[in-house]
Amino acid sequence: MQKIDKSILKQVITPRDPISYKGNYGKILIIAGSSNFGGAAIMSASAAIHSGAGLVTVATIPEKFTAINTRIPEAMTVDYHHLIEIIDAIKNADVIAIGPGLGTSKYSESLVSLVIDHAHMDQTIIFDASALTIIAGSKIDIAKIPANVILTPHQGEWQRLSQLEIAEQKPKKNLEQLHNIAPNALLIVKKHLSEVYYEGSANQIIAGNPGMATGGMGDTLTGIIAAFVGQFGFSQNTVEAALFLHSFIADKIYKKNYVVLPEKLIEAIPKSMQKIVTNKKA
Amino acid sequence: MQKIDKSILKQVITPRDPISYKGNYGKILIIAGSSNFGGAAIMSASAAIHSGAGLVTVATIPEKFTAINTRIPEAMTVDYHHLIEIIDAIKNADVIAIGPGLGTSKYSESLVSLVIDHAHMDQTIIFDASALTIIAGSKIDIAKIPANVILTPHQGEWQRLSQLEIAEQKPKKNLEQLHNIAPNALLIVKKHLSEVYYEGSANQIIAGNPGMATGGMGDTLTGIIAAFVGQFGFSQNTVEAALFLHSFIADKIYKKNYVVLPEKLIEAIPKSMQKIVTNKKA
Amino acid sequence: MQKIDKSILKQVITPRDPISYKGNYGKILIIAGSSNFGGAAIMSASAAIHSGAGLVTVATIPEKFTAINTRIPEAMTVDYHHLIEIIDAIKNADVIAIGPGLGTSKYSESLVSLVIDHAHMDQTIIFDASALTIIAGSKIDIAKIPANVILTPHQGEWQRLSQLEIAEQKPKKNLEQLHNIAPNALLIVKKHLSEVYYEGSANQIIAGNPGMATGGMGDTLTGIIAAFVGQFGFSQNTVEAALFLHSFIADKIYKKNYVVLPEKLIEAIPKSMQKIVTNKKA
Amino acid sequence: MQKIDKSILKQVITPRDPISYKGNYGKILIIAGSSNFGGAAIMSASAAIHSGAGLVTVATIPEKFTAINTRIPEAMTVDYHHLIEIIDAIKNADVIAIGPGLGTSKYSESLVSLVIDHAHMDQTIIFDASALTIIAGSKIDIAKIPANVILTPHQGEWQRLSQLEIAEQKPKKNLEQLHNIAPNALLIVKKHLSEVYYEGSANQIIAGNPGMATGGMGDTLTGIIAAFVGQFGFSQNTVEAALFLHSFIADKIYKKNYVVLPEKLIEAIPKSMQKIVTNKKA
Repeated sequence: MQKIDKSILKQVITPRDPISYKGNYGKILIIAGSSNFGGAAIMSASAAIHSGAGLVTVATIPEKFTAINTRIPEAMTVDYHHLIEIIDAIKNADVIAIGPGLGTSKYSESLVSLVIDHAHMDQTIIFDASALTIIAGSKIDIAKIPANVILTPHQGEWQRLSQLEIAEQKPKKNLEQLHNIAPNALLIVKKHLSEVYYEGSANQIIAGNPGMATGGMGDTLTGIIAAFVGQFGFSQNTVEAALFLHSFIADKIYKKNYVVLPEKLIEAIPKSMQKIVTNKKA
Repeated sequence: MQKIDKSILKQVITPRDPISYKGNYGKILIIAGSSNFGGAAIMSASAAIHSGAGLVTVATIPEKFTAINTRIPEAMTVDYHHLIEIIDAIKNADVIAIGPGLGTSKYSESLVSLVIDHAHMDQTIIFDASALTIIAGSKIDIAKIPANVILTPHQGEWQRLSQLEIAEQKPKKNLEQLHNIAPNALLIVKKHLSEVYYEGSANQIIAGNPGMATGGMGDTLTGIIAAFVGQFGFSQNTVEAALFLHSFIADKIYKKNYVVLPEKLIEAIPKSMQKIVTNKKA
Repeated sequence: MQKIDKSILKQVITPRDPISYKGNYGKILIIAGSSNFGGAAIMSASAAIHSGAGLVTVATIPEKFTAINTRIPEAMTVDYHHLIEIIDAIKNADVIAIGPGLGTSKYSESLVSLVIDHAHMDQTIIFDASALTIIAGSKIDIAKIPANVILTPHQGEWQRLSQLEIAEQKPKKNLEQLHNIAPNALLIVKKHLSEVYYEGSANQIIAGNPGMATGGMGDTLTGIIAAFVGQFGFSQNTVEAALFLHSFIADKIYKKNYVVLPEKLIEAIPKSMQKIVTNKKA
Repeated sequence: MQKIDKSILKQVITPRDPISYKGNYGKILIIAGSSNFGGAAIMSASAAIHSGAGLVTVATIPEKFTAINTRIPEAMTVDYHHLIEIIDAIKNADVIAIGPGLGTSKYSESLVSLVIDHAHMDQTIIFDASALTIIAGSKIDIAKIPANVILTPHQGEWQRLSQLEIAEQKPKKNLEQLHNIAPNALLIVKKHLSEVYYEGSANQIIAGNPGMATGGMGDTLTGIIAAFVGQFGFSQNTVEAALFLHSFIADKIYKKNYVVLPEKLIEAIPKSMQKIVTNKKA
């Protein structure tokens, strides 16, 4: 496996064109949240906004709009039970992240199908958290999706998807199973030193710490990936830079904090990105 | 076009009279927000409050009151479906900003008409965002409004209003079209180096950066303009100072942040304004 | 008029007894807020908490509980339409502040009456904002209240209460009218250099600035007064120290901020109070 | 009584295993809150998250979900009236804290019973605040609970539980009464220099200050204890370290703040814990 280190950041995170507009930095749709899991959508969307996404819309239940408006007034909302609005939002998005706090209800399943049915070539779809569990337990065939596909399981979710026990999850096996499930998809296996699988290659992120073992870290990562794809385009490099930045900022916070809370990490993103661009020690 | 630089700030932002009251600094009414666009009202109103507005009222749907109370307890609220209350609020306001996150529903259209019907000479009305789209798609004649009128389109919205393609939006054409639409209105065309058109003159704001290409920047600007008119009176200088301050603070933030988030910009306003007044390097 | 200066702070704000409990620092009840004025209760209660009040309860409409829980989780709540609970809260409070954002509805009037009917000798009642307008427009006789009474009108409210035009509001006249209205009450007239009237004396607060001319400043003051009475007991000195601290902190903030926002002022209270106690330059 | 000093922190708070996951740091269930006491759950849960708990779920009424999602998006929620969900949450938790802001309604009583009925050996249950009042007024026998039990009364609550007047609450009597009530339970008596009773020993925490005499301090402590047991396992040392850290951070804040607000204390936890682990002066 190739080791991905800090050099990935400078490759991907580039200065903005002086003459550019919100539309240049991606329309992100985050389909997330349910009654008991209301915070995940906030963390994903806030991470996307702080990572430079142009426009971020959260599709969730209306009961969560107040928390979203309060915490992240920059985000727009859509009621994901409103079929016309959610289909419209899916069609118009450049990047869709589905899954954080979504739960595995019948309706959540239908949302996963809805995304897949309306996906088109110019899009990237990130299947995360509950969406991965739904896919693992269904007959949904993600190999046929015309959009770019990113899968972000942690080891337990990857086991459900791949039928590989955690002990068996070695690069060769992971690549084989990814090939069987969705040969064109990019797979992240989230763990201590996370791994990225894409088009037959296996890379490893050399950053991260146990202070990240806390609720919301995955939701935060999903938002960063979505924003990066929206700004820098879908590529293995883009996704690896998002992963690396997430762990890189966490490592800085962990030096002084026993636990790395999502809010702290998210808050640090704009400064960290600008340091990379301006050649300062990030 | 005349270039507007930092000197505009000292001309407009003046020390407060030691013996003065809330009433001296403007009653601002912000008519904004709808179910899916709940954050715009918060950003506009918060910007107005941080810019020194005396009293700020947000007219919106009651579902958004909790987010407003939580984020900006200084703001009062009005349900814009409550006809007696909204008409009363319109009549009593010194400055009305209508449009952020309002959407273009039939009811939003009637709100735009309501504002126009009740406008009076001592007021300034800022038409922003959805209100501009509504005007562009209707037979509303804004030339006859007795109040001072400010239009704040970005280039796409100006195209809808003026029928000028973005490539055609040059000073001479812009002035011509403004004269046709509303000869007494002040027009801001928001873009890289925004332009201000008023009474035949065309000025350009020499500040701003691509980190501002993010959701909520326009809503924030609208709030600053409203507060400035409320405190310093309607004039081309006042509006240009508001525009300049917005970009000026954003430029400072952008030096250290890849993206300029509204919250950061808003938070920096009171200090930035006082530095200008106290002759310190702002 | 005697000038009240910084020396009042050290007289009133004393170190806490090492062995003491929440119950020693006052049960504060803030009856405040209505549909359109949801922020006032938050600012009053937050100011009280930051000023060291032992226990703070906000009586308001349930629609405002979420904003209160979110902004000030330390505060308890009561639905002021729930007669048993509100009467219970009134009876058990050491200090009651009624009025911020309450509005002048019939029900608000009945709340003012309810407080007066259940007041007892060991209590202090602060009538503020809407409560003052209600009293001015009613036959309520506040002279007969057995509790300590504090009135906190600004000049316009004092005019409504006293029938004195603002130009007539001179110390002698103010004392005369206070004697007619409520001879045992303590009166604050809020203005540039606010005045305190009590038992025939008239004092003036030598602090304050025009940056305080913003929404919520009065609500914030009310919370500080309530907390101070709860901790240091009702006295002219206690109230003057609360007033002075409010303006004193505002003056520090104003040096660097064009407008003094309630949130900033409130946040600075605990540090400012401790500096006074520990003999450091506050 | 043995004095517990700062050395307890280094004994208990240990570096995290580099290869570890959320699941290694405890599933915490906080059963808390009711209509009028909405903030307690937020403070307990926020304290638990900042203290490093792996996963935190708040069981409360759905009206409080928005405030929880807004303030602590990391927390999951459960409606405690939903029997299937609450029983499931109880069974799956490693640590349960019941009581903060719960109130003493019939339903709250049934929640206490529900926890006791489903408790199992691998769990720790913290009975706090309202839960202690419920136990004191009922025939519930907490001696028979198979889980580890922690009781966290302040002196008044301990009086209700033990029938010992506050003046009688001396180590010997406290141990006797604890033996009668629940011989295997760990008892904290919260007061100036709090005391810990367990298996016949009586220890005293040598930290704390009167600035802590404010609403929410107890709720905050409960969250820290829950997180510590979740991470470091149930033991007398673990609980004493949680208690000491709470007072230790409060003492630092109190040096500069007249009152120690929960939010400030909570915010300081991750840095304080990491200083202990990295051998820096905490």
